[in-house]
Amino acid sequence: MSADDQSSGHEFDLIATLLAPLTAHTPEALGLKDDAAVLQPPVGHDLILTKDAIVEGVHYLRSDPPEQIAQKLMRVNLSDLAAKGAKPLGCLLAAGWAPKTTRPWQEAFVRGLAADQEAFGLRLMGGDTVSAPGGAFFSLSAFGAVPHGEMVQRTGAQVDDVIFVSGTIGDGFGGLQVGLHNADGLSADACEALLTRYRLPLPRLSLGPLLRRFAHAAIDVSDGLIADLGHLCATSEVGARVRVEDVPFSDGVCEGLSKGLWSWQDLVSGGDDYEVLAVIPPDRALLFQQEALRVGLSVHPVGTIVAAQDGFNVLDPEGQYADIPHTGYQHF
Amino acid sequence: MSADDQSSGHEFDLIATLLAPLTAHTPEALGLKDDAAVLQPPVGHDLILTKDAIVEGVHYLRSDPPEQIAQKLMRVNLSDLAAKGAKPLGCLLAAGWAPKTTRPWQEAFVRGLAADQEAFGLRLMGGDTVSAPGGAFFSLSAFGAVPHGEMVQRTGAQVDDVIFVSGTIGDGFGGLQVGLHNADGLSADACEALLTRYRLPLPRLSLGPLLRRFAHAAIDVSDGLIADLGHLCATSEVGARVRVEDVPFSDGVCEGLSKGLWSWQDLVSGGDDYEVLAVIPPDRALLFQQEALRVGLSVHPVGTIVAAQDGFNVLDPEGQYADIPHTGYQHF
Repeated sequence: MSADDQSSGHEFDLIATLLAPLTAHTPEALGLKDDAAVLQPPVGHDLILTKDAIVEGVHYLRSDPPEQIAQKLMRVNLSDLAAKGAKPLGCLLAAGWAPKTTRPWQEAFVRGLAADQEAFGLRLMGGDTVSAPGGAFFSLSAFGAVPHGEMVQRTGAQVDDVIFVSGTIGDGFGGLQVGLHNADGLSADACEALLTRYRLPLPRLSLGPLLRRFAHAAIDVSDGLIADLGHLCATSEVGARVRVEDVPFSDGVCEGLSKGLWSWQDLVSGGDDYEVLAVIPPDRALLFQQEALRVGLSVHPVGTIVAAQDGFNVLDPEGQYADIPHTGYQHF
Repeated sequence: MSADDQSSGHEFDLIATLLAPLTAHTPEALGLKDDAAVLQPPVGHDLILTKDAIVEGVHYLRSDPPEQIAQKLMRVNLSDLAAKGAKPLGCLLAAGWAPKTTRPWQEAFVRGLAADQEAFGLRLMGGDTVSAPGGAFFSLSAFGAVPHGEMVQRTGAQVDDVIFVSGTIGDGFGGLQVGLHNADGLSADACEALLTRYRLPLPRLSLGPLLRRFAHAAIDVSDGLIADLGHLCATSEVGARVRVEDVPFSDGVCEGLSKGLWSWQDLVSGGDDYEVLAVIPPDRALLFQQEALRVGLSVHPVGTIVAAQDGFNVLDPEGQYADIPHTGYQHF
């Protein structure tokens, strides 16, 4: 791991005393005493590489708990690995510390890394620590493994495939509203549940092996259900038909809907759900759903892949065609 | 590759029109249409993973040419791979764009990436693009390969090993002074040469195979010759004896020395040289030097590894013991 020679001398101390202990059981990290890590890739496997960065004031608020900022950083990357069917191996962290970042803040951030490293097996192997005068940022590169040739891609969706989503949709949007104090009148239970989901998404890693067995294509829902389905359709050169009445909403999200705090359009367009969207051949759909339940995950069919010329259609809760922007679809 | 859903819609366009063309010959990148890249590691090799981030106003100035900012980002990471004896494979880029970053600025940045991707074989495979309200940052994770078990580490230096450095030392410091307008009276030729070395370091990749054959340990000189030798000695649990009169200085650096613009202490303590420091068993030192010349690189012996209890000694140009801070040695 390297440190910024232009930052305070505390950087080397930070690596040695706070970060190096995280690598006690990770020989690849070389105790963070080198500039590089050395990884012996698992035989017969491909490496899956992904990278997501988070920026203070953009992806999180300075007032957010530092443990949870670290955990969200780990989990948005783990969510990408999950959707590709990969098993987490390790990660490199670039930490850009804001001015006047305190040691207790850093210690709390590192506790968050430690907790999720333990929970999900994404082990810290190296990185860089620098000073960031304009505000903190953290960039994580995550590595996972899949058996050779089995990565689940965005491309590959076929006409008549069933579109599934894991868990529930819209909790990310609802949690953000709670965090921004835009949810007056929502019950305390709902507020807590949604805020927790927003801050601590649940990467669906246990779905990975099933995606490799069943899915023609998959993507994690980070930009919003409709936008990410749009990305997948664009890359696969197909269209889609989504029924909003089949989209799984949590109790907290439904409470906000019934109180007029948000609309179903908000929920299927908002980001930060970090669920998995997968398309499954129709004759395998039931078995996929059953096998997912056996690993403790509910997956819900929300629509069908159609031919590209049949377009991208969203049916509102009354079954009428709705006009919803689906950004990714337009751009690629 | 992923884009920030909270940034301007231009991000998807940026990936598709500016970055994706860089991956035309890199199947691992999946055309940047996925959130992840897929890398089939070379059989019988270990992967070397490194990560360096650069921040506007810390590691470069906003007024620096964007091509060269991108190239420096690539090269500081390539320098780490070079010192580990690794062959470059690919990289993931996190780009945090400052407010009001223009399209021409981004195009120039991408031209820099393209040029160095071509020159050094470090191919873009994926990443993330986000908005950075507090100022730009760029984080690169670079991957290289070495034959299994052959990574050159910081640890492993032995008493009596000869300490070699590649190229010249102090050009990074001199170039920074030129950039900061702290080099009044230096000739135009020297200014240009030093500034170019500061902005465009030369990763010593051709030394990699020789390091694997000859070196007990190696490190790239990024924090300064003395500091990085200190890191290597600390990790290897040895001491060192360095003769400043043997440290190779360029013509430009010598001109500044003779004009009193800087001292030898500045030059051996300043960062950003990105040369390789390697320790070689004494009976192999001459052959190492000869073989380096055959691949077009000059390497110079600047001292000797001694026992830890004999300490860390720098002999000044008159052969007297000098007092130089060597940060890394104190911290680990």
